[in-house]
Amino acid sequence: MKESGKKEGAASSSSSPPCAACRLLRRKCTHDCVFAPYFPPTQPHEFANVHKVFGASNVNKMLQEIPEHHRGDAVSSMVYEANARVRDPVYGCVGAISSLQQQINILQTQLVITQAEAMHLRVHHTASSNIIESQAKYFCDMDMVEHTSYGDSMRSC
Amino acid sequence: MKESGKKEGAASSSSSPPCAACRLLRRKCTHDCVFAPYFPPTQPHEFANVHKVFGASNVNKMLQEIPEHHRGDAVSSMVYEANARVRDPVYGCVGAISSLQQQINILQTQLVITQAEAMHLRVHHTASSNIIESQAKYFCDMDMVEHTSYGDSMRSC
Repeated sequence: MKESGKKEGAASSSSSPPCAACRLLRRKCTHDCVFAPYFPPTQPHEFANVHKVFGASNVNKMLQEIPEHHRGDAVSSMVYEANARVRDPVYGCVGAISSLQQQINILQTQLVITQAEAMHLRVHHTASSNIIESQAKYFCDMDMVEHTSYGDSMRSC
Repeated sequence: MKESGKKEGAASSSSSPPCAACRLLRRKCTHDCVFAPYFPPTQPHEFANVHKVFGASNVNKMLQEIPEHHRGDAVSSMVYEANARVRDPVYGCVGAISSLQQQINILQTQLVITQAEAMHLRVHHTASSNIIESQAKYFCDMDMVEHTSYGDSMRSC
């Protein structure tokens, strides 16, 4: 989520330029403008897309219903959605959701296959260790039996 | 994506009930209503959320700009986004995107760890096979040397 709607500009005074929203809507940007903290005049495209997709009136209503400390995140997510909808008018950011879900399915399949392979190798590894151990023990025992029978009991494993 | 905006109702005639959009907007549903094919009267909540989030006018404009054979998918994705925004006014469906991205990060980490484990086991497996082989060969050779020195050259591996 690259788009940002964090507070970058303050509500406009008579001396400062109007926020991107008020400039686009051609209205006076007052000190209590709900858009000004999130749509600074330096980023006009962000509000343009949000306005095109959600409508300024809807965004205004939605922001009023959200506690002030969550409004920055709400604007960020709306900017993200609006940009996605402008890029892809058919699927919008739902296209990204489908794509991420496909990636998850692929990763889950790869993980299951790799886990099965690791399990298979682990079983083989244990079996091999047992063979090495028992093989060594077998030949060691054989050695002792043979050397004892030939009167050489000094050698041991 | 469970929400569906596929064609389920046809444009309303004078005898059939108005589509969910025209009913909510309290207007006459004509035979060329752009909403009627995608917002049947049986699913009023879908249009209510789309209207609340995007605004009927914006949806109308967006649908007009999309080829007719893509409009069903466009409505489906807008219904999905609108429902997500109503459920979560701060993050909307961007919350789902963040959650999916986190799942992808977790799966990628698990996959890298499991792949490394499998690689480690594969190397050990090959080393163990070589040990078993060389151990067997060593003891077999020792056997032959010893048995030959004791005059028993009949035993071989």
